[in-house]
Amino acid sequence: MSGNSNDTAEAGPKRGWREYLNAKLGLRNFWYAACFSKEIGENDVLVRKILGEGILLRRVHGQVRAIRDRCIHRGVKFSDKVECYTPETITCWYHGFTFRWEDGEVCSIFASPESKAVGTQRVKVYPVEEVNGMIFVFVGDENYTPPPLSHDVPPGFLEPGIALEGESRVVKANWRLGPEGGIDEAHRYLHRESPLLLDGRKSMPLGHKAAPTQIELVEEIDGPKGIIDHFRAEKMFFDAQIDGKTVVHSPNFGLEGRQAVSSSAWMPACARVLGFPDAGLTLFEWYVPIDESSHRCFMTLTKLCSNASEAAEFKDQFNLRWSPLALDGFLVQDVRARESQQEFYANELAWKQECLLEDDKIIMEWRRLCSRNNRGIQLPEHLV
Amino acid sequence: MSGNSNDTAEAGPKRGWREYLNAKLGLRNFWYAACFSKEIGENDVLVRKILGEGILLRRVHGQVRAIRDRCIHRGVKFSDKVECYTPETITCWYHGFTFRWEDGEVCSIFASPESKAVGTQRVKVYPVEEVNGMIFVFVGDENYTPPPLSHDVPPGFLEPGIALEGESRVVKANWRLGPEGGIDEAHRYLHRESPLLLDGRKSMPLGHKAAPTQIELVEEIDGPKGIIDHFRAEKMFFDAQIDGKTVVHSPNFGLEGRQAVSSSAWMPACARVLGFPDAGLTLFEWYVPIDESSHRCFMTLTKLCSNASEAAEFKDQFNLRWSPLALDGFLVQDVRARESQQEFYANELAWKQECLLEDDKIIMEWRRLCSRNNRGIQLPEHLV
Amino acid sequence: MSGNSNDTAEAGPKRGWREYLNAKLGLRNFWYAACFSKEIGENDVLVRKILGEGILLRRVHGQVRAIRDRCIHRGVKFSDKVECYTPETITCWYHGFTFRWEDGEVCSIFASPESKAVGTQRVKVYPVEEVNGMIFVFVGDENYTPPPLSHDVPPGFLEPGIALEGESRVVKANWRLGPEGGIDEAHRYLHRESPLLLDGRKSMPLGHKAAPTQIELVEEIDGPKGIIDHFRAEKMFFDAQIDGKTVVHSPNFGLEGRQAVSSSAWMPACARVLGFPDAGLTLFEWYVPIDESSHRCFMTLTKLCSNASEAAEFKDQFNLRWSPLALDGFLVQDVRARESQQEFYANELAWKQECLLEDDKIIMEWRRLCSRNNRGIQLPEHLV
Repeated sequence: MSGNSNDTAEAGPKRGWREYLNAKLGLRNFWYAACFSKEIGENDVLVRKILGEGILLRRVHGQVRAIRDRCIHRGVKFSDKVECYTPETITCWYHGFTFRWEDGEVCSIFASPESKAVGTQRVKVYPVEEVNGMIFVFVGDENYTPPPLSHDVPPGFLEPGIALEGESRVVKANWRLGPEGGIDEAHRYLHRESPLLLDGRKSMPLGHKAAPTQIELVEEIDGPKGIIDHFRAEKMFFDAQIDGKTVVHSPNFGLEGRQAVSSSAWMPACARVLGFPDAGLTLFEWYVPIDESSHRCFMTLTKLCSNASEAAEFKDQFNLRWSPLALDGFLVQDVRARESQQEFYANELAWKQECLLEDDKIIMEWRRLCSRNNRGIQLPEHLV
Repeated sequence: MSGNSNDTAEAGPKRGWREYLNAKLGLRNFWYAACFSKEIGENDVLVRKILGEGILLRRVHGQVRAIRDRCIHRGVKFSDKVECYTPETITCWYHGFTFRWEDGEVCSIFASPESKAVGTQRVKVYPVEEVNGMIFVFVGDENYTPPPLSHDVPPGFLEPGIALEGESRVVKANWRLGPEGGIDEAHRYLHRESPLLLDGRKSMPLGHKAAPTQIELVEEIDGPKGIIDHFRAEKMFFDAQIDGKTVVHSPNFGLEGRQAVSSSAWMPACARVLGFPDAGLTLFEWYVPIDESSHRCFMTLTKLCSNASEAAEFKDQFNLRWSPLALDGFLVQDVRARESQQEFYANELAWKQECLLEDDKIIMEWRRLCSRNNRGIQLPEHLV
Repeated sequence: MSGNSNDTAEAGPKRGWREYLNAKLGLRNFWYAACFSKEIGENDVLVRKILGEGILLRRVHGQVRAIRDRCIHRGVKFSDKVECYTPETITCWYHGFTFRWEDGEVCSIFASPESKAVGTQRVKVYPVEEVNGMIFVFVGDENYTPPPLSHDVPPGFLEPGIALEGESRVVKANWRLGPEGGIDEAHRYLHRESPLLLDGRKSMPLGHKAAPTQIELVEEIDGPKGIIDHFRAEKMFFDAQIDGKTVVHSPNFGLEGRQAVSSSAWMPACARVLGFPDAGLTLFEWYVPIDESSHRCFMTLTKLCSNASEAAEFKDQFNLRWSPLALDGFLVQDVRARESQQEFYANELAWKQECLLEDDKIIMEWRRLCSRNNRGIQLPEHLV
């Protein structure tokens, strides 16, 4: 294990993390979940802060567009008084700067119709993709050609026939504590009394000793980048001892009763857990940076459905069963842990002082993976 | 237009602003509006923070005095428990340091009557002027001889026979957004649905093309420094188009129906609009820095009155008509714009990133005027 | 007197304070009051922030233990969900890291029982002493051998037979304003209308002129370090004048009627007043740094009692008489003064700008004493 030593980020087991450590505001030039489709009806607008940037979304003729929520002229927020005279444009309520949603171009300035700015100046626009009931925006450099969405979501997410249900909430913790908690196999102790486990008679070891084949890196050039924990253990511990005395016992229903099949983390910031909260279901949990000290967590469950009635049944199941048991009764325990970690990790020195275990190797590899494959780091100067 | 380029404050159209950009806490060695006369009756005290300095005002025998609201000895605030044993003095409630309002001199220390500090130490006092129902204090270096008040208020303000009515409110925006908005002729679109215009059947173009004679600089050595927008346009636009289609139409009642005659901004931080909100009236709007992110806005209307009954009639008119229509129904729209700009302009880089228009030339000239004629910049070290 | 000059902390009367000025977070390697004994019953836990460090206290088998309230692994706070499976240990609710209260050693990790961290890693533990109904913790370097508690409390506090009563409250002021106010003999004017004085017919001069023998430094190697004000005056002033006119008169009941016998300040941060609030009683007031802008003030009164019924009588007296009169009616006036000073002293330059008097010599000597005898300065990097 590392930590409590004089390791710097450049030496020892912590070598190769530098970009990750700098990325407190997030990784640039990736696709990020912005909201659920159901949150923006036709002609609706919605503001979201992502990587510190205020972004205004609007749906017109069914399609969602996104622009920087700030007029280029004098900096007021469009969202303070939304004025859309045509489906293709938004007009700033202050001087009548009018921008095209499609490319951000200034197409009219009511205060100064003959200005040279018309047709030459632009507000930042964000590429948008809508899939599985979720809306993704690409946040980064304007001259960066976005990769296909498939590179920035976990494998399987775009499979046809997927039905998705979910909720989002703001978590008062840096975004990096999201995927790190998601990939952390060693925290099952936290969940031992989760109603989800008790209800489902699921067995979950309190600890394990990793097998050499436990971790798999996925790092193809033309695909998602991630790290998979295959839950392969040399040993599993269902009892916990202090001074030789068993103090906690977790029931072992055998492999058939395992809660999940594998967990994984994917760039930029998503965890996937196959078989969670039940066989045939998959958890995709998205941790979207808001600012340095908070992120929006989208807790989403998917199921491959062969028709609409199966999807409708899954929706009922989600509302009646998984929302209370798997989200409120299990995933929210992790949310509380992330918020409890924030005071410590808000201090940049914490990343050198933490005392990681052998079982945290996957977290260390995840940090290196993000550092190697980052496409840019969001910095305060990007917010102007 | 400038902006969105790599311009620095030292080059291109933004050259010559450096002092203005540094003046986020305000310009030193100027007279500033502190409060209305009606806010301090005989023996009353009032605390105001101006340019970051806590200032305690008191009226004795009709005259208003002002001192730094902080004991020189151990830093407590006089205002936490005001003790005035004589009309000429204030005593600190902590150790009995007693100061003369007139010159700030320590004239007694109850805890240590024989101290050498008696007669030799001083608290900062501020010169005060009271005129037109307003109280002004001079904020700056103690060895700086204040110019006459007439140098630091707009022309016309001190004319005999002026009756003044007004209100003040705290605006959560840097003070510089005050005069910039006041001098900004191009934002009339914001006001197009103001009840003031509808009520008065005033015409107001949505945009214009400036004539070369539009702007006048006033920069005499022995007088106020300001910049006047004479509302001289080569063209006026009453319709706004997007893609060739008219989307907004503003009624044109001809020049007789113009809302105002001219607007201007004056150092340190006042806007004057002749003919606003109606013929024969003048708006003086004062933007007094409180701290880096807020200012106190005094919205005042004046009318030249030949006798007391005319002034009383103006007062009724103000309360019944102009306060709801011109202040709440018009000027407050500008207040909201300033507050909406604040998040952007709080970042110092914003002043380089903004995308100013040809019509914003007057704002650029105002910034240069302030830089050229500044008498000192308020800095954090001045607050100790 | 000093101040308002260009003195730096390195020259003139302010020479020799540098360590004290740096100690805004507190002095390291000292014993600090954490709480009253009555606040932690058997098996209770309590969190206190001291010198910026979150500290978790627990009483087991009568003995109070203290550890850093933060898991070494991933930084969560133990106090968010306290789990103690055995009297000797605390288990982190996140991964099951289990620590011994006695030495902080990791004695089990439920998630990873075979980790090398077991038996080798440690969380910070704090030495604890309980005396006179108060619990003290030693805050500092882990390899620093704590001196006996007797070195870090005022003389007399550990005398056998002491009965102690008291209350604590959070004061929104830097800790250094605590002992400085406690040792400040010159602020009696503040208390002139205290119900304590009126009730007790106590005389208290408004001012005095110090005798050369007024101040005594106590600086033995093997004992407490402090400074005593013996209340020896060459002159005492019961009247205060402004311009020759008496404006305040304080009744003089003679020496027998004096409120207290002497006051003193002791490292790290305690004031002692003999004979306060009445003959035979002693005030010990502790100012324990929480963070840079607040401290916890323990107002405690002691009486030497020869048996339990005398102690019980003192307890009744405290509740019925001294708590309202001496704490709420007198000491709280000082609390308000400290909070009124905070805005000024929060600025580091204030310590150079303050205008100290001849009578403040004792405060200057106290600052030098603390600088000379400091055992380390708490810095932000100590909080990681």
